[in-house]
Amino acid sequence: MALQPLNLSLPPTLEWRDDTLYLLDQTRLPQACVVEAADSVEAVWRAIHELRVRGAPAIGVAAAYGLCVAMQGEQSASRDTFLARLEQHAAYLDSARPTAVNLRWALDRMLAHARGGAAQTGATLYAALVAEAERIHREDIELCMRIGEQGRVLIAAGSGVLTHCNAGALATTGIGTATAPLYCAHRDGLAFRVYADETRPLLQGARLTAYELKQAGLDVTLITDSMAPALMAQGLIDLVIVGTDRVAANGDVANKIGTLGVAIAAKHFGIPFYVACPSSTLDLRTASGADIVIEERGADEVTQLAGRRVAPEGMKVRNPAFDVTPHALVTGIVTELGIVRAPFEATLAALFANGVAA
Amino acid sequence: MALQPLNLSLPPTLEWRDDTLYLLDQTRLPQACVVEAADSVEAVWRAIHELRVRGAPAIGVAAAYGLCVAMQGEQSASRDTFLARLEQHAAYLDSARPTAVNLRWALDRMLAHARGGAAQTGATLYAALVAEAERIHREDIELCMRIGEQGRVLIAAGSGVLTHCNAGALATTGIGTATAPLYCAHRDGLAFRVYADETRPLLQGARLTAYELKQAGLDVTLITDSMAPALMAQGLIDLVIVGTDRVAANGDVANKIGTLGVAIAAKHFGIPFYVACPSSTLDLRTASGADIVIEERGADEVTQLAGRRVAPEGMKVRNPAFDVTPHALVTGIVTELGIVRAPFEATLAALFANGVAA
Repeated sequence: MALQPLNLSLPPTLEWRDDTLYLLDQTRLPQACVVEAADSVEAVWRAIHELRVRGAPAIGVAAAYGLCVAMQGEQSASRDTFLARLEQHAAYLDSARPTAVNLRWALDRMLAHARGGAAQTGATLYAALVAEAERIHREDIELCMRIGEQGRVLIAAGSGVLTHCNAGALATTGIGTATAPLYCAHRDGLAFRVYADETRPLLQGARLTAYELKQAGLDVTLITDSMAPALMAQGLIDLVIVGTDRVAANGDVANKIGTLGVAIAAKHFGIPFYVACPSSTLDLRTASGADIVIEERGADEVTQLAGRRVAPEGMKVRNPAFDVTPHALVTGIVTELGIVRAPFEATLAALFANGVAA
Repeated sequence: MALQPLNLSLPPTLEWRDDTLYLLDQTRLPQACVVEAADSVEAVWRAIHELRVRGAPAIGVAAAYGLCVAMQGEQSASRDTFLARLEQHAAYLDSARPTAVNLRWALDRMLAHARGGAAQTGATLYAALVAEAERIHREDIELCMRIGEQGRVLIAAGSGVLTHCNAGALATTGIGTATAPLYCAHRDGLAFRVYADETRPLLQGARLTAYELKQAGLDVTLITDSMAPALMAQGLIDLVIVGTDRVAANGDVANKIGTLGVAIAAKHFGIPFYVACPSSTLDLRTASGADIVIEERGADEVTQLAGRRVAPEGMKVRNPAFDVTPHALVTGIVTELGIVRAPFEATLAALFANGVAA
């Protein structure tokens, strides 16, 4: 498959330049486009923890470069010392966000590369780490393009497509996962409508998805999360595509809070519900959604917005960052290798058994 | 049925005291509890128009007192002059919220009372108006109590109850409609949990429902609208109760945007979904939800949150204020006369045929 790169005229999510990691601060979008150097491993941890860089694939790439940042000052260390420190930093970075599988995956890959390689000095180990992080970065861009080409067939002319949260270019270092088929269809001149759920509490849909799709020239309409079922009832939605932070072996999908409600409503109205992700997000070691740890975040995200309180003082709040959509509600999973459909336990296992997925 | 009044230790939505109408400014809640005298008919119009007093039942009572405010300075007028001016003021107040059924209903009732009574002087006509407004006010309080006692049986000890938007004390002059069964169960010493959807875009759940239930001592947890299905999946929700703006003859329910999604999710998880309202909200002249016109509101409500812009400039937006929940998703409708269940076409007609409902 020929993969033409797709220029979205968007600021890059992250860049590695002159041995420095630059991160776009997504918490400031769409009001301000601020790029900052993350000059310590703590700065990378905070950027991931505080969602300045977010989206499972982007977190993976940021964490890989984060290990480079961490080890930059250890280039005079012995191999053993270097590897011991590397493992400490990897464990530290892994603690920034609990749910996304890509974080652990990228860190493990960096560790394996350092341990398994021939490099004997701190300097050569550091160089090997940078090379591997850049490889992970390039692969992410390529994976997004492949997901886009695979999912492109799902988009029909004149149709309405709903997405939730931001599994977009800003969640990756390429053209996104859930948005990749949209960008490819738009590149091909297809006319279709996109509806973006605002995605409370952190409004990634309003701030990021609406921003990037509008910026790229797509026909995008912003709605509150609560409006999607009403639009489905009106026949305006023909397809749902979302991203995911982790897919279990049985096809259960962990994704941004609110995805479950979208999937239930889609099922109710007979609308296909697709999940898009690189195959690295398929976690066969996790048997089902029941085994996925769901991050519970602070109350202020619900009771406040940018320091402005919208609920009573001392209000009791629940704030799960993700929910699990059972595989029975999932029509298919779009990966770089193809679209996988039920029965997922078998089709997902086959994807890995064929040796094509990592 | 003996109806003990229920003191919620909440500021009253409105009060008529010393020939003055006092209104709680609900746009300032929960940050500030501001009560202001509405000392002219223009002030009452603005309070209704700007949602400082909102909720169909509360708007009706405010409008009735609004006519008293309007006619206070006309007590030396002749009967004919008084009635002519009264009609002008009623038409003016009716223009404050074109879609609120109770507004027209309350104004019509006040006009009919003035025209049909024996009062011949401006002073006695004014006294008759005040008496009728106080009657409408007392009836609203009584209706809420009756809805509460009827719905009380739905609340089980240890259960979790979800509500959407504010069909609470603040939407009425009593203990609310959807909240009435909750207040009655709490009065009876029952321990149970309430979950309040924040209700984007205008956050009536976060600002008003969370506030009034917390203030009254109930165990209430605030969530974003998108979290309800995840909490249902966790088994935390045993019952849903919402209010309504209009129920069609076939049982279709128009209510705040997001209600449809809650109903679909409740159905998916086998959770009972109840609607609470006075029988005056049952509109048998409207055949089905398809005949209900849905108000589309301005884009700023979606692109801004609590006055702060959260989406890109010039964003395309949909903003339907209400949605229609088909009767097939409705377990029952709680009125002051009892709980009505499917088949609604028959049971709703019977309620009126029996002559008990107005």
